[in-house]
Amino acid sequence: MEQKIFGNAIVGQSGGPTAAINATLAGVIRGMLAQTVTDEGGRLYGMRNGIDGMMRDNVIDLSARFTGEDGTPDEQALTLLERTPAAALGSCRRKLPDPESEEGAAVYEQILAIFRKYNIHTFFYIGGNDSMDTVAKLSVYTKKVGYPMVLLGVPKTIDNDLIVTDHTPGYGSAAKFVATVMQEILLDCAVYTVPAVTIVEIMGRDAGWLTAAAAIGRTTTGYAPDYVYLPERVFSMDAFYADLRQALSRHPNVVVAVSEGIHFEDGTPVGAIGAAGKDAFGHIQLAGAGKALENAVRAELGCKVRSIELNLPQRCAAHLLSRTDIEESVRVGKAAVEAAAAGVTGEMMIIERLPGTDYRTAVSHRPVGEIANRVRAVDSSFINEAGNNVTDECCRYLAPIIEGELPLTYEGGLPKFFRFD
Amino acid sequence: MEQKIFGNAIVGQSGGPTAAINATLAGVIRGMLAQTVTDEGGRLYGMRNGIDGMMRDNVIDLSARFTGEDGTPDEQALTLLERTPAAALGSCRRKLPDPESEEGAAVYEQILAIFRKYNIHTFFYIGGNDSMDTVAKLSVYTKKVGYPMVLLGVPKTIDNDLIVTDHTPGYGSAAKFVATVMQEILLDCAVYTVPAVTIVEIMGRDAGWLTAAAAIGRTTTGYAPDYVYLPERVFSMDAFYADLRQALSRHPNVVVAVSEGIHFEDGTPVGAIGAAGKDAFGHIQLAGAGKALENAVRAELGCKVRSIELNLPQRCAAHLLSRTDIEESVRVGKAAVEAAAAGVTGEMMIIERLPGTDYRTAVSHRPVGEIANRVRAVDSSFINEAGNNVTDECCRYLAPIIEGELPLTYEGGLPKFFRFD
Repeated sequence: MEQKIFGNAIVGQSGGPTAAINATLAGVIRGMLAQTVTDEGGRLYGMRNGIDGMMRDNVIDLSARFTGEDGTPDEQALTLLERTPAAALGSCRRKLPDPESEEGAAVYEQILAIFRKYNIHTFFYIGGNDSMDTVAKLSVYTKKVGYPMVLLGVPKTIDNDLIVTDHTPGYGSAAKFVATVMQEILLDCAVYTVPAVTIVEIMGRDAGWLTAAAAIGRTTTGYAPDYVYLPERVFSMDAFYADLRQALSRHPNVVVAVSEGIHFEDGTPVGAIGAAGKDAFGHIQLAGAGKALENAVRAELGCKVRSIELNLPQRCAAHLLSRTDIEESVRVGKAAVEAAAAGVTGEMMIIERLPGTDYRTAVSHRPVGEIANRVRAVDSSFINEAGNNVTDECCRYLAPIIEGELPLTYEGGLPKFFRFD
Repeated sequence: MEQKIFGNAIVGQSGGPTAAINATLAGVIRGMLAQTVTDEGGRLYGMRNGIDGMMRDNVIDLSARFTGEDGTPDEQALTLLERTPAAALGSCRRKLPDPESEEGAAVYEQILAIFRKYNIHTFFYIGGNDSMDTVAKLSVYTKKVGYPMVLLGVPKTIDNDLIVTDHTPGYGSAAKFVATVMQEILLDCAVYTVPAVTIVEIMGRDAGWLTAAAAIGRTTTGYAPDYVYLPERVFSMDAFYADLRQALSRHPNVVVAVSEGIHFEDGTPVGAIGAAGKDAFGHIQLAGAGKALENAVRAELGCKVRSIELNLPQRCAAHLLSRTDIEESVRVGKAAVEAAAAGVTGEMMIIERLPGTDYRTAVSHRPVGEIANRVRAVDSSFINEAGNNVTDECCRYLAPIIEGELPLTYEGGLPKFFRFD
């Protein structure tokens, strides 16, 4: 017998966008379209701009939007949505107040009013750490007031810094972009014979997973940056200069990858060494870790130095998706609907890597309270002893997550993307 | 009757790499492999690291390298080469001395010794403006000393700033990357409702062609940045602030594209307003135009501001090639061999856009002396009156150059590239 979800459902996206968060949304929609819509429920609504927009009743009917004229799922729109970067529903960065607190009451009553208005008893929130916190707090509140509710968190983050899950949806595509662009940068840097240092700054404030991806080529193509510096290890300028001098003695074109979050022993971010400067207008200059190191290395070594901040394209370059990532992201969304139908609540969907030599994963779920507000650092066994690179084991662990391509549909030379408006 | 090239030939790559310079090299190789190799000539050599490496006798036999065991062209290697970014032969940045000068004599004699050693009487140089200067000077010198030589320049530059040619090989792929990433950035920036300005800095010191490509989506997908600032127009902070305020009054997420080469009325580069700062170590902070504007706008408007420098991937992102660009780049290389066989010398290959509504091009050639050391700016009719955007006519002109995709071969999630070693 088909398991039915409880009442109507609503789905939202929250936190920083990724290239895969819409694939997970498509998975939730696909799962919900398999439900029968009755007066009692089965319909899927979408919050525009997360919980923030939902509180302002900015809600759309996704069941209607993704059902074709013949009553079947609109496959074309769903496929397009799966390959569209950023958050199609819009996002927000709102941390809910303590559900036990006085000032929280008004906020939660507003949320409850929306749930009642649309007969919503099932809630999917696709996001990172803060979003899992939202799921945990709504669980506490709805239980407290006795409003029957099934709440599930669906993870996404390019940072890959959630615990319990093997990796997060969205990481694979970001990692594929970083690893591929690193291959191209290595080729570009190799064309001259003049000694030069290229510093590639990669996203990741607290965890170095995405920076680690820069090295994946080492165990596949055989090409990788000379060094990789993660925030999991203390950064030292002296050790860095020594590393560069040694690399320059081997070949003229030295390329290193650094996490944006690298810091010195006293906790000062490396990017802050550049922040004391002011521009001609007296504005404080905010430099990233890469730019700060570029200036320092130029002064210390006197050779040609360049820094490259890979920046936003890391998280939104849908033109270079990991098929593994997108397929898993859709599966996680579908599995969330199945879990909700089975009555699971207050949990986050996770990806488990199954034992064996071939890469295989299963989707499961774990209590969100175990996961929210904790950061998963890169494993110690994945970082070399000198703390200036990742291990081959790390590269082999990450490699399957970037496997496979998923070409976009192009029109007039540009990719077609899904948009609600 | 087959036209034969004169003696043996040599080909080199020079200047900054692009995603298409190897496609042109593959075109030259394909053209030369159609020649019969005899004791008198017909063989193609390659200079490693341009004229610089050639003078040190760093020369390889390309005819041998790209001929398969059965005597036919190695199609697999040639196809791989066509889709490999950067300069497979290596590059250099060397400006030759005046061939009439005293100090030039030693340099030119060294070059001539290499030509004699390999019986080279045909010379292909793939590069930008400086490379055309090299072709022009070698023409003068070899004529002066009576050494029979056919010399041809084959253009490449992502800057698209060579005169006479409709556009340059390499521009189309860089423009496709810029235009595509801009679509992705626009989606990414649209997820929040908080007022924010995103400044995207694009390569191009003297000409704004690549920055103009950021707007191509306007006439195709309907999405483009709010403003586009090119070095062809004087930049004013006041006008910039006024533009941003107006855009922010229309929608919360304002995105602008700026050329790295934008400058104020007195000629000062916009990036220089940040250069007065020093970091904690006393190093001068070099900021780009985007970073400098980011700091200035944050202080002036007080809203969220971000700058993104697209940086090196613009010129080496082979994972997003323009098929039009790569096919034209190969054609230009092949046509250079045909021109050489017909005895054309001292000329640069050019792309002509044929009249008509459909996009069609022909490859031709023009005297290199007309072209070298001149910069082609973006046409006045392509820039709007306010000087803060490109026209629809410009978008429509550029659109066909980014048409078509050319997927790479991936292995283990990463693209396979050609390497000589």
